[in-house]
Amino acid sequence: MTSAATAPLLRRLNAETVLNVLRDVEAIRHTELADAAGLSRPTVDAVIEDLRRIGLIAEVEDDTPGRRGRPARLVRFRAERGHVVGIDIGVHKCMVSVADLRGVVLTTQVRSLGQELGRKERLDGVRKAVREALKQARVERSAVLAACAATPGIVDPRTGVVLTCDVLPDWKGLNLRAELGRSFGAPVLSDNDANLAVVGERWRGVASTSEDVIYVLAGERLGAGIVSGGQVFRGHDGGAGEMAFLSLLEHTPGAEGIGALASHIGKEVVARLREHTSSLTGDAALLLAAARDGDTEAQQVLEEILARIARAIGTMALLLNPELIVIGGGVAAAGEQIAEPIRRRLPQMTSLPPRLEVSALGDKAVTVGALRTALDSVESSLLDNLNA
Amino acid sequence: MTSAATAPLLRRLNAETVLNVLRDVEAIRHTELADAAGLSRPTVDAVIEDLRRIGLIAEVEDDTPGRRGRPARLVRFRAERGHVVGIDIGVHKCMVSVADLRGVVLTTQVRSLGQELGRKERLDGVRKAVREALKQARVERSAVLAACAATPGIVDPRTGVVLTCDVLPDWKGLNLRAELGRSFGAPVLSDNDANLAVVGERWRGVASTSEDVIYVLAGERLGAGIVSGGQVFRGHDGGAGEMAFLSLLEHTPGAEGIGALASHIGKEVVARLREHTSSLTGDAALLLAAARDGDTEAQQVLEEILARIARAIGTMALLLNPELIVIGGGVAAAGEQIAEPIRRRLPQMTSLPPRLEVSALGDKAVTVGALRTALDSVESSLLDNLNA
Repeated sequence: MTSAATAPLLRRLNAETVLNVLRDVEAIRHTELADAAGLSRPTVDAVIEDLRRIGLIAEVEDDTPGRRGRPARLVRFRAERGHVVGIDIGVHKCMVSVADLRGVVLTTQVRSLGQELGRKERLDGVRKAVREALKQARVERSAVLAACAATPGIVDPRTGVVLTCDVLPDWKGLNLRAELGRSFGAPVLSDNDANLAVVGERWRGVASTSEDVIYVLAGERLGAGIVSGGQVFRGHDGGAGEMAFLSLLEHTPGAEGIGALASHIGKEVVARLREHTSSLTGDAALLLAAARDGDTEAQQVLEEILARIARAIGTMALLLNPELIVIGGGVAAAGEQIAEPIRRRLPQMTSLPPRLEVSALGDKAVTVGALRTALDSVESSLLDNLNA
Repeated sequence: MTSAATAPLLRRLNAETVLNVLRDVEAIRHTELADAAGLSRPTVDAVIEDLRRIGLIAEVEDDTPGRRGRPARLVRFRAERGHVVGIDIGVHKCMVSVADLRGVVLTTQVRSLGQELGRKERLDGVRKAVREALKQARVERSAVLAACAATPGIVDPRTGVVLTCDVLPDWKGLNLRAELGRSFGAPVLSDNDANLAVVGERWRGVASTSEDVIYVLAGERLGAGIVSGGQVFRGHDGGAGEMAFLSLLEHTPGAEGIGALASHIGKEVVARLREHTSSLTGDAALLLAAARDGDTEAQQVLEEILARIARAIGTMALLLNPELIVIGGGVAAAGEQIAEPIRRRLPQMTSLPPRLEVSALGDKAVTVGALRTALDSVESSLLDNLNA
């Protein structure tokens, strides 16, 4: 393969450098911007002109009170240039967040979706959730520059088609990008939920300083988002991180996440607990609450469930040698009640045990990662126009 | 972080592009080189001057018989500019290859090393093997521009220190780069053997068209080299691909590779076979030969061993979703006798079963990968001098 580096590449790299400075400040003088970006003043002036032309920056006058003389020209990032939408489609609900181009979240809306919904009804529910969120954020649909949708299952990284999805069987074969793309006039991206969650944790969660992270979505089912050297590890068809291998490890087909294991090996305890509670929460939450309240049987079942989860996580840690494992998903709210028993077991399984933390983003990790992915896509296409 | 793309970056990228063209031809005219590299004639002339200055190319006259008029100037890659050495340190032997800068292998030498050797004696044996190989290739030590050494165990990717090595316990804490660096006047790199084998398979083996590959070193022990998106996946401390997790899967501590499993679960059959043979080969080779000869017990034990190996490989395939798995190591010579029973089981374990091939490089995959790694390092440091 032969490819030559050319002036457009330089121009774009310089624009990215300048944007990285501008996004973190309110407004800045040209000279300060040149210093901060490590570029010459003429280069910065050319970049400013480029970015002004694609609408990403504006010039403002320095209105500092008490300032004398001719007003200095300042440059600022136009976060209001457009918006992005992050969508987390789940079995029971859909969460939608709207943010500006600086990534400031304007609203996050949750809409319940019945587990029994068919493909069309579920997609309708997602579209309604998006409409509600945009209305709440007072953002016009035409101002949305990109959206990113998360789904359970394996998403082909080239086409965006759902290849398999155990928890939503009729999702198989769905092209989420095309389906939701029709609802927006802007590009729609899609990816597996755990893959987007790990992006979220690296952007605004507990993984911000780590380049080698595994995010474990340990809810009803088990899934993992893997980042190595700062890049999401998707595998050849997008199937990396599918943790169905817990079945291989444990010979309990189908019982994958903490929720599923609670319903499976904790069935009798859960049934007893249901008799004395009016709680509508899932089996895992019921078990966790009872264990906290000192129910010995619940504690024993929980210990057994977490031992199995720990074996799955330990196997991944041994094979992939991450620096950090983040436990997320619905059960993350239980915090150390879940993390400690898993952390305790890791050194028995690998000579290089990773740190283990509970997600601080909780059930928002996926939408946060979807927003980040949409923002990257917007910036990339705007910068493509520099050389047009 | 702010960093600006500058002219030196362009200069280097152009030099790499030109080198990629030159390495594949004997000699080429400036105009043809410009076309093939997709660069302007003035740019190519500047690159040629750069590369001539660091000794990587030479100008020659076109001596095509029958050519008329003024001789045309041709440029050629100077493969003789220096040499590289690839070293595979094993438990029983050390293999050393010497190549020129085009990667043409001049010699490959093998030296036996006793399993009982201590650290110092083993290192002495490695140095002797290198001396023999250089002598055989008629290459002066001073002409070696880089070497790369492979070892079992986990090698810290930052320092080159062996963090753990089950099969060579006193190897732990060894800084191979420093130890062997003293023997050369050139940089010495080091890495885990399976990590280098997967590089070798991608360069000159069965994985040349795949970006998502797992190489399984299925010999006495089990280890894996993982490549994702064309990059070696090392993990945070270099521990990725350590497949000790077969113990987690199978509850047979220490019995990892085909050889170890043969000695462990095939103990009685192996003992019986030893009574009727004078062969000095390992337990795995003995078992494989007997199975081929129709020994039913040997066939049953082999089937059981390969079922366990298949579970380890299937777990990796499920978690990492590679396009291709390459079976290598000492047992690769058995070819389909090993590959077929593993391949047959993969679809039971993952919905996206990868292709499975036997290494064509056999026990040379590691040294081939070491040569490639040394070549990359040489080219990179020579090009660093462009802007000096």
